[in-house]
Amino acid sequence: MAKDMTLLWGSGSPPCWRVQIALEEKSLQGYNQKLLRFDKMEHKSQEVMDMNPRGQLPAFKHGNNVLNESYAACLYLESEFKSQGNKLIPDCSAEKALMYQRMFEGLTLNQKMADVIYYNWKVPEGERHDSAVKRNRDVLSAEVKLWEGYLQKASGSFFAGKNFSLADVTVYPSIAYLFHFGLCEERYPKLAAYYNSNKDRPSIKATWPPTWLENPQGQDQLKDI
Amino acid sequence: MAKDMTLLWGSGSPPCWRVQIALEEKSLQGYNQKLLRFDKMEHKSQEVMDMNPRGQLPAFKHGNNVLNESYAACLYLESEFKSQGNKLIPDCSAEKALMYQRMFEGLTLNQKMADVIYYNWKVPEGERHDSAVKRNRDVLSAEVKLWEGYLQKASGSFFAGKNFSLADVTVYPSIAYLFHFGLCEERYPKLAAYYNSNKDRPSIKATWPPTWLENPQGQDQLKDI
Repeated sequence: MAKDMTLLWGSGSPPCWRVQIALEEKSLQGYNQKLLRFDKMEHKSQEVMDMNPRGQLPAFKHGNNVLNESYAACLYLESEFKSQGNKLIPDCSAEKALMYQRMFEGLTLNQKMADVIYYNWKVPEGERHDSAVKRNRDVLSAEVKLWEGYLQKASGSFFAGKNFSLADVTVYPSIAYLFHFGLCEERYPKLAAYYNSNKDRPSIKATWPPTWLENPQGQDQLKDI
Repeated sequence: MAKDMTLLWGSGSPPCWRVQIALEEKSLQGYNQKLLRFDKMEHKSQEVMDMNPRGQLPAFKHGNNVLNESYAACLYLESEFKSQGNKLIPDCSAEKALMYQRMFEGLTLNQKMADVIYYNWKVPEGERHDSAVKRNRDVLSAEVKLWEGYLQKASGSFFAGKNFSLADVTVYPSIAYLFHFGLCEERYPKLAAYYNSNKDRPSIKATWPPTWLENPQGQDQLKDI
């Protein structure tokens, strides 16, 4: 029981979901947690600001150790609980290299996805341009093709080999996000297979975004990507 | 001698510099390396594309293991050469947590810096707005103040305690970049002290950007930040 840990999170946010998956994988259930709502601006509440002065979710701490950056939390949890739950960093040098490489490329994928999905939210009305929207979509499309190619060439069913690793902990939420926002399963069959086959993985099933369960239909913003 | 390693890099690029510092800290001198020029678009050359299909620098490999993402390379090198050179991840849980937290916040600092410095390079002419320029500068200013505050409250002279760690390997290049682009030393005394006192650290001195040595004056784009 991880009673000395606290996680403030928002439903569907890839950074929050990464930390939740890592906690499950390391058998760290039973932590204190609170689901907050972005649409009510609860990520700017005093409770969050006290833990994460950037006013972002996740806000996570283990005892007095604060790890609000999701990648930081994942690496820390694997390091502190190395022999507990599932091993998330491979011993083999080649797999380890691939794991780190994909894990950090995942930040680029997530950024390019956010640039498309949150364009109107991030860019003030007077600064919006159709040319930027088109470019962002083209850039995302090229990026998603890259990831489809990674799985085509993969030696196992995961991003860094035969085992679920930190590359999957960090990238799976973005892949799920793409499909939730309408990415076409037929156009990206390897990504779709990866997405669907891991839905039932215990760590992912246990942490599936509650707002997505309420509205499994999702959106279609990315259907032409 | 690290003859089984190859690094293609560009002068002044924080991601390239991170990998160079990590290699020095781990006593991995003697690797194959080639300095390429961004202004001649050499990062899009076939030689780079063969190693890094994203057409970005750094491009780095150790044997057949490719680690083009600078954070991936740093974490990999520390893991593979744990007992060689300087230890870059603290054993102490609290320092380790702080190290990971600062390391990943460093990506945000670097992004906000790039949004200001490379605005005209990244945003096509017809999409530029003075309001965006002003906002980006305000955002960077708030971010830099945060880092000044981190050093004010630090228990040692480094970002995660008394020892130079991966937090410094990854963030120092961005801090140096800020000052090279004119950040005011008087306005940010802690950051300036950190910047200046580490200039002579062997790993940093040995890898100081050659274009900065040729033109130590730098630029003044950030003097009002």
